[in-house]
Formats: sequence, C-alpha cells, structure tokens
Amino acid sequence: MKVQILGNNSGGLFIKRHFSAQVVQLEGRRYLIDCGEGTQMQIVKYKVKFERIHHIFISHLHGDHVLGLVGLISSFTMRLRKAPLDVYGPDGLKRFLEVQFELCSVRLSFEVRVHIVSCTQSALLVDDDMIEISTIPLKHRVPAVGYLFRSKPAKLLNLRPDVVPAYGLSIEQIKAAKAGQDVFDANGTLIAPDLLTLPIKPTVAYAYCSDTAYSEKVVESVRGVDLLYHEATFLEKARARATETGHSTAVDAANVAQKAGVKRLILGHLSGRYDDWELHLAEARPIFAETYGTEEGENYEL
Amino acid sequence: MKVQILGNNSGGLFIKRHFSAQVVQLEGRRYLIDCGEGTQMQIVKYKVKFERIHHIFISHLHGDHVLGLVGLISSFTMRLRKAPLDVYGPDGLKRFLEVQFELCSVRLSFEVRVHIVSCTQSALLVDDDMIEISTIPLKHRVPAVGYLFRSKPAKLLNLRPDVVPAYGLSIEQIKAAKAGQDVFDANGTLIAPDLLTLPIKPTVAYAYCSDTAYSEKVVESVRGVDLLYHEATFLEKARARATETGHSTAVDAANVAQKAGVKRLILGHLSGRYDDWELHLAEARPIFAETYGTEEGENYEL
Repeated sequence: MKVQILGNNSGGLFIKRHFSAQVVQLEGRRYLIDCGEGTQMQIVKYKVKFERIHHIFISHLHGDHVLGLVGLISSFTMRLRKAPLDVYGPDGLKRFLEVQFELCSVRLSFEVRVHIVSCTQSALLVDDDMIEISTIPLKHRVPAVGYLFRSKPAKLLNLRPDVVPAYGLSIEQIKAAKAGQDVFDANGTLIAPDLLTLPIKPTVAYAYCSDTAYSEKVVESVRGVDLLYHEATFLEKARARATETGHSTAVDAANVAQKAGVKRLILGHLSGRYDDWELHLAEARPIFAETYGTEEGENYEL
Repeated sequence: MKVQILGNNSGGLFIKRHFSAQVVQLEGRRYLIDCGEGTQMQIVKYKVKFERIHHIFISHLHGDHVLGLVGLISSFTMRLRKAPLDVYGPDGLKRFLEVQFELCSVRLSFEVRVHIVSCTQSALLVDDDMIEISTIPLKHRVPAVGYLFRSKPAKLLNLRPDVVPAYGLSIEQIKAAKAGQDVFDANGTLIAPDLLTLPIKPTVAYAYCSDTAYSEKVVESVRGVDLLYHEATFLEKARARATETGHSTAVDAANVAQKAGVKRLILGHLSGRYDDWELHLAEARPIFAETYGTEEGENYEL
C-alpha cells in the first residue's frame, strides 16, 4: 500500500500548497480521499490514472475538501467513462452533487453511486478480496469522518522468478505452490516452499484523519496502524484558534499517534500561515519521534 | 483598459492551460469574467488584488466557467472581506451559490448580490462615472451571455507633471484646469490648456464572447470594438464537433471580427486537443489579419 499526497493545505488559500486530496494505492487500485478545488489538475500533474479511480471518500463538506468533486466527475464524463463510481461522504453530499449536475448540465456517461456515511458511528464500507475500508468518526465543526484502509492477506502466494523452468513445474504444481501446498520434484523429494514462493506480504493499515480536533475516539479507531495521516493545522501558540475552529495542533496529532501506538505519523492540513513543517515537527517529535510532515507529490509506503 | 487572461482552455482538462477566467482592469478596478475551477489560485499567481474585485460576470453555468466561484467567495470570506460583491450570470446562478453556501457551511462575511441576466436580450448592467457594462446574447447549448465593457470619457482632465509649482497654480486654478476651463497666469495671459493638462484618453470598448457558435447577433453587438475576445475552440477540420457542441472555429471568430469591423481579435477557449494557436491563426488571419492567440498571464491593452 502507498499513499500519495495531492494537496495538504488547510482552507486558507496559499500559493505554495493545494487543498486536501490524496490517493491510496493498492496493486492496480486507486482510492481518492477528499477532493478540494484543483484536485483534477493535481491528478493529471502526478499522472494518477483517471480510470483506476473507482472510489472517492469525502471527509466532510467544507469547500477545501469537496469543491473539486464536480469538476473531476465532469472530466470523467468528458472522457466517456463507463465504469460506475462509488462516492462516500456525509449527509448533504448527494444534494451537493445533484444540484450541480443539474445546473451545470453535466450529462453523466456513467453511474455515480453516492453512499452517505454516519459521522457518529464507525461503519465498514468496503470489504472485498484485497481490502477493508471503514469510517473513523471525527470531531469537527461540521459532521466529519476519517477513513481506515486495512489490506487483507493475499489468498495466493507469488512464485519466485524463474522457478517454473528451473524445476520444470507443471500447471498442477504451480497451483499447489501458489496455494501453499507441498510440491515434490521428479525424485519425489519435497521442494522447500521458500525456494518456490515469495514470503507473504504482511497486511497493513492506513488511517486518514482530517479535519478533527483531538479526540479519544480517534485514538481508539487508529490503534496500531502502520501509518496515520492526522491533521495538524496549527502550532501550540495558536491553540485558541485550533479550539475555535475544531482543528488540531502538532501536539494533538502526536498525542493521538503516541497513545494509539501507531508506527508512523504524517502531518497534514497545514495552515497557510506556516511556510513549512519545521516548527510543527519540533513540537510533535518530543511526544512521538516517528512524525513527518507531508509534501505534495510525495509517496508514503506502508 | 487592460485585459489579463487567467485561463483560456475549453472544458476538457489539459495540463498546460487553465479553465476560463480573465480580469478586465480599468484604473484601480478589477472586473472578473468567468471563474472556472482553479481561478482563485490563478488570481494569487498573477497577483490580482482580491479586494479590488467588486464585480464578477459569469457567461454560463458550464463547469469550466463557474466551478471556481464558491471557492473564490469562500476565500474572500476567510480574508474577512466586508465590501459587497455583485455577481452577474444566467438563471440558476443564485441556486448554484445558495445550495453550496448552505451545504459547505460558508458563513459569508459580506453581501453577495446575485443579478440574473437575460440570455436573449442585451441589457445594461453597470453604468457609472467610468464604465458601461452590458450583455451580449450568445448562441450555445445552454443559455449564455458575453459581456461588453465600454469606458467613458474622464470627467476631469489630468494635470501634466510639475505644472502646479511651475505656474504657481492655486487650488481654484487647478480645479479650473482639470475641468477644461481657461487658466490665466499672474500677468492675465491665458496659459495654453495643452501646457497644463494631458490629452484626454480615448474611450475604448472590449467584448468577451465565450462560449458561442457563430452568430450574426454577436456581430451586431460587438461592432467596432477595440478588442474582441471570441472563443475558437476548434479548427475547420472539427467543424462537425463545433456545430454539435455549440462552439466556434477559428474561421467563425475571424468572420465575426471582420464583419463587425473590430480593431483586434484575440482567440480563447482552446480545446485540449491543440497544443497552441498556430493552426488556428493560419485559418483565421486570411480572413482577419489582426488575430492573435491568447496566452495565460498575458495582458492585452486597449
């Protein structure tokens, strides 16, 4: 699993950074989280393939998280997309889309399936052969949810390169090896499984939490994840502003990471009043050493 | 008067160009025409002062002309704007804004006055001491209008530099000179008006026509303007597509300019299938020599 940041600025317009959007990559799949104004341009800039996006997850209906959605869907339609698109988000999202589709005469070339999510109780949204995706109720001025991505163990093992000719494996032997069953050579000797197949990839978990004030419920929801993206709009000096606007400081984010025992914390949703993450890291790392600031275009591997 | 292009691409997303938006400048005033997604970033990039924008003119409700409007207004509000904003555009614009303000919890810090314009009959929208702004009915798939900006002669003349100390002018003499009245020196000799005041600036007219198919009505509306921005989405080779989508070719735009006897034509709303204006100019200039392709960030002086 890999996360690529398309935008990590807060709502205040700032020339150096874009509004919230990111892509979770798992094998050939691309899951888009949030879609601030300009996201479709960022998607093209960072060469994310449009046709790989089948799911979009909106955290809340503030403009910096959602105003790029109608433009992106319009561009899907202009490219004559056929595959349905599942869009998840809080109450109001359906009307937000429908009214704009109507007024802007967007004639969809594909089905947009809007799924309204609860912002008070966690729910499992996607559960297939590769991934589980569920919501994380957040604590913001308006109803908001984060999203938790948990990969599943692969059902079949991957063969090491060149083992098929090297051992002269038959189709049945290949199937057995991939299924983790014993395979014997022509002399009837067991071929050590490690020689045939690659080690199984560990399952990983990624949590996206933006926008939110510090919340114990979030701590519970993200316990032990490999990577946590938590908003850290402000520094401690702006604590009053953070409280007033329902946002977190770098210290809040670090406290969530530390209490939840996550492996790594990346900070996002930086206020336009700050040029970079330097001061945020100085406040967060004494609490949680494995803290990093996100940068646009960067990939974070799990 | 000066026109600065912020975006001149058609609706098809293209990495090299932005969606429709431009700024008409007259003295300290800034009039924004159209507001595609990303316009607020372009405004910051090209250092257009937010607080100078008091009027926004929307040509029609297709996404590439209007999807940046709620983001821009949200940013005005985040900067605690107090001055009212007049927004002009076709029917539906009020609901477009109100539904998004409601769903995205935009709490305006200033008054947004929406003026719905007719798309079938020309109307005078603004008429003050400096400018007249009226609509130009266009011919598109959805109701659409262009806008005609006509400067007025200055009521007062401007003094030449340093004439006040040079002639020892009194306040009354300054007022008289600026009003175009005779001014006499200490010996009672008339000071030639040309020595005191600058030549009066000629009035100028600018017409914005996008999106539209070729229309005789447009020819009538833009007769004799100094500068005409006319969309030229396609080349002749794509004539069928132009007809189908209610757009113009470079030849259409040149025919409008030639028949209307305008001074200069600038082309806009270029389809993403074209890299630059080279082929459009080759088709347009044999019909109307004073044709130019617009470039993002460029200023066109009248």
